[in-house]
Amino acid sequence: MDKSIFYHAGCPVCVSAEHGIINLLGEDKVEVVHFGSNKSRISEAENAGVKSVPALVTPNGNVLHINFGASMANVKG
Amino acid sequence: MDKSIFYHAGCPVCVSAEHGIINLLGEDKVEVVHFGSNKSRISEAENAGVKSVPALVTPNGNVLHINFGASMANVKG
Repeated sequence: MDKSIFYHAGCPVCVSAEHGIINLLGEDKVEVVHFGSNKSRISEAENAGVKSVPALVTPNGNVLHINFGASMANVKG
Repeated sequence: MDKSIFYHAGCPVCVSAEHGIINLLGEDKVEVVHFGSNKSRISEAENAGVKSVPALVTPNGNVLHINFGASMANVKG
């Protein structure tokens, strides 16, 4: 994969981080996944190592938890 | 400024995040500041809104705290 994936859950912290990341990397370099509308991808994110949102998984699999919006336990609620 | 600034304190979490960020953005787009060798820049980082390290301050002033290595209180020791 050549895109990073930005996982979030629509929280204010997430939205702010999303703007920062997209400004930084460019919209075409980031796939944005909102768990609210895409619950099926929660397990994919957990397998990648995502512990909280917002998080960015880079093309080489590095997981960057950016600021802190909510834990994955909250996301699964 | 057109570069992002990555502030860190040499902790393992910092080093791992540094690699991720540099892979992602490119070495020429990131200034790396290590507080251990650059204590004079702690106040600059705090003024920018950095609360913990590692953190990335983007060219437009967005502060992204990436994972969690240490609080600024720990950094100032």
